[in-house]
Amino acid sequence: MLRVEHIGIAVKSLETAIPLYEKLLNAPCYKTESVASEKVNTAFFRQGESKVELLESSDAEGVIAKFIERKGEGIHHIAFEVEDIHAEMDRLRNEGFTLLNEQPKQGADNKLVCFIHPKGTNGVLVEICQEIR
Amino acid sequence: MLRVEHIGIAVKSLETAIPLYEKLLNAPCYKTESVASEKVNTAFFRQGESKVELLESSDAEGVIAKFIERKGEGIHHIAFEVEDIHAEMDRLRNEGFTLLNEQPKQGADNKLVCFIHPKGTNGVLVEICQEIR
Repeated sequence: MLRVEHIGIAVKSLETAIPLYEKLLNAPCYKTESVASEKVNTAFFRQGESKVELLESSDAEGVIAKFIERKGEGIHHIAFEVEDIHAEMDRLRNEGFTLLNEQPKQGADNKLVCFIHPKGTNGVLVEICQEIR
Repeated sequence: MLRVEHIGIAVKSLETAIPLYEKLLNAPCYKTESVASEKVNTAFFRQGESKVELLESSDAEGVIAKFIERKGEGIHHIAFEVEDIHAEMDRLRNEGFTLLNEQPKQGADNKLVCFIHPKGTNGVLVEICQEIR
């Protein structure tokens, strides 16, 4: 894997979390984006070569709403950039990791993404992502 | 803040988590270090300009042991590198964030560190750190 692409943080409300994270990180939110298929609204902040991605559920049944119900607001996942997502998915399968989607799917920020089951990674939801070229 | 310095992950056992994360990240663990004052054993992996830091409690009463008891294994904190930790602590105090230590303290990996209370950051335990020069 090449680098930490982003850290995803589940929040109840972007409206309150965006100004708070602008103060915390001392950096502006440079983009917001909704991903209807994932029922999520996102907001991005740059930190070096990585990003912080705030995630707000756009639907009471969305995965982020359910995460917050169960665990409260907080870090939801870490995403690592990879060069070739298909090759990396094959490598991880061969190493015994369980992938949560069998094919790469479209994520926010012009990315193909795949998630790895947290039961096999000490409770950490790991995303791998590749820029769509 | 300059960049994501590391992501801290609480694990029950470094002995099993280190080989697993070497497979997951496809990168070797390049250093282990114990921080007696924090009752923690750590293991580091490079990912671009950031690190993944596994944290194992060296004591049943340690903060990592208590975190795992309460929440299970998983992401414990995100650390951002800063140029001047004293200036950044002043800036954060002035912005209304609650610092968990009033003075920088010695962390792993030759760093001065300060933690920010997760109640003011949407449930995320944020560390700021500065290399000791």
